Amino acid sequence: MTEDDVVAAIREIVEPSSRTSVRLGIGDDAALWQPSRSHRSAISTDMLVEGVHFTRETMSLEDAGWRAVAANLSDLAAMGARPVLATVALGVPAQASFDDLMALYRGMAALARRAGLAIVGGDLTRAPTLTLAIAVVGEVRPSNVTTRGGGRPSDVLAVTGRLGAARAGLAVARGEATLDPPLARAALAALRRPEPRLAEGRFLAASRNVRAMMDCSDGLSTDLDRLCAASGCGARLEAVPAAPAARAVAQTRGEEPERFALAGGEDFELIVAVRARAFGYLAARFKALFGRELLRVGVLREGAGLFWGEEPLARSGWDHFSAG
Amino acid sequence: MTEDDVVAAIREIVEPSSRTSVRLGIGDDAALWQPSRSHRSAISTDMLVEGVHFTRETMSLEDAGWRAVAANLSDLAAMGARPVLATVALGVPAQASFDDLMALYRGMAALARRAGLAIVGGDLTRAPTLTLAIAVVGEVRPSNVTTRGGGRPSDVLAVTGRLGAARAGLAVARGEATLDPPLARAALAALRRPEPRLAEGRFLAASRNVRAMMDCSDGLSTDLDRLCAASGCGARLEAVPAAPAARAVAQTRGEEPERFALAGGEDFELIVAVRARAFGYLAARFKALFGRELLRVGVLREGAGLFWGEEPLARSGWDHFSAG
Repeated sequence: MTEDDVVAAIREIVEPSSRTSVRLGIGDDAALWQPSRSHRSAISTDMLVEGVHFTRETMSLEDAGWRAVAANLSDLAAMGARPVLATVALGVPAQASFDDLMALYRGMAALARRAGLAIVGGDLTRAPTLTLAIAVVGEVRPSNVTTRGGGRPSDVLAVTGRLGAARAGLAVARGEATLDPPLARAALAALRRPEPRLAEGRFLAASRNVRAMMDCSDGLSTDLDRLCAASGCGARLEAVPAAPAARAVAQTRGEEPERFALAGGEDFELIVAVRARAFGYLAARFKALFGRELLRVGVLREGAGLFWGEEPLARSGWDHFSAG
Repeated sequence: MTEDDVVAAIREIVEPSSRTSVRLGIGDDAALWQPSRSHRSAISTDMLVEGVHFTRETMSLEDAGWRAVAANLSDLAAMGARPVLATVALGVPAQASFDDLMALYRGMAALARRAGLAIVGGDLTRAPTLTLAIAVVGEVRPSNVTTRGGGRPSDVLAVTGRLGAARAGLAVARGEATLDPPLARAALAALRRPEPRLAEGRFLAASRNVRAMMDCSDGLSTDLDRLCAASGCGARLEAVPAAPAARAVAQTRGEEPERFALAGGEDFELIVAVRARAFGYLAARFKALFGRELLRVGVLREGAGLFWGEEPLARSGWDHFSAG
């Protein structure tokens, strides 16, 4: 039973309750509705559980708060939406202290403030493990809405940054890998203080040449497979741009850097499918605006399934549901 | 450390990130923002944890799903808002089956469909205990917005229904009380399939004579104390209308029915503060429309604190946070 199987079954149960103001329901990074004719709002939710998504050995509670907000904002980024507000439902074990809760909230507030996100409400309750469920609402211009489903064969697939840094950070935080200090710092920052690609997402969504977009939070192969399924295409992966820290950790383990980066989750980069003839121009504008490469990773093609060259590629990313 | 203390501290941490489109932040049943000039949207979130808010001995997973949606819808009802959509973040223990998840979703979808609420997205993740965090979004006409903070001395306090039925239901479900079959059924229904007062909330919010409103989910004394604090008033409680099942359970235990009902949570009735001279007319219209009494429970008064006659009354409701 994979996460996607369960989601498909849930979709069947809840589908009949869909309303006309809902423009996009279950299955994308965020759902969309229409509060008034000229506006689209986007909503998304993510749950972070201590022991599943983070441990205090690998990050502070401030980091965990930041990361929970980052995961949610990344879903808004993937819709090209501007963050507006968030609610926070917090399950708190009896042994958690007041200072623990304040640390969590300081981490959440730090990223929220930077992103222009207001934390407007929530719920506090007892739970056996520290559990954060955040819901974020954003706004997107109707003409900019970019889902997972608009990709077409021959579109170029690209990502907004190198992958695997968060996975490398986890290895460093657990003491499973030792890197040079600057690389170690970069890896730990990618794990603990990821930066959702909000400005990049808004820029890409505004381009008519970007036909599909999603965030890369469960690993490139898993997420690309979802983009392909939604777009009714297959894909050929040509390159996996591994972050320097991912490359370094992979090398110390004798693994291929590409495979290490492919399976890493929580990178919070965006994946886009771009009309082929516009890719060069778009990538140049992206570089000029953000000082970062829009990295080509492959192409969409007719048919179904993910290929590495001509070899079928299994999903190797993080399935929150079948894992554990 | 009470829930309200923690909420106050959280408020200080997150306050600086407030944005102009946010009209009402932390501290009411729902937060409000303005997606466009003519619209107000309301958002609220509630977390339900197995073993804390429900056990499988006292209700089925379908009931738990229904109840989680009811708790969220009740917050929208308290703002006079019409439900639009919900997201569901679900933490699932390894031992939960596919059928367990479908049962939960069937319960959620059943109430969502009746209330016109679309379940548009969510998150599935591993967790040590079954944990549901729902966020709901609704819409409310700007002129109808009714918060906890508008009550004034001499306003009549009233509730939309008799209290304590859910608490009686819990006693029945646990086998701690035996009632006549019709009373037992009513008590179990109040526990397992509570009906949020959505239509009643919209009607009351539309009246200019209703100056403050909130839902009664943590027990009348706790929630009334919050309404008083937000309105800058005190209150004198004059009557606690106990549900027949609450009365019956209290009597078998030799407790006062009023005290039993006062301390019961999860009734999901609405509490309103009504301009005194309009109360009779409003209650008559309420009765005509909904076939149910708008029950007077007391009055707001100058000063602070909650009194039963002239005796100070301690909160006896459910504090999710200090409990457990």
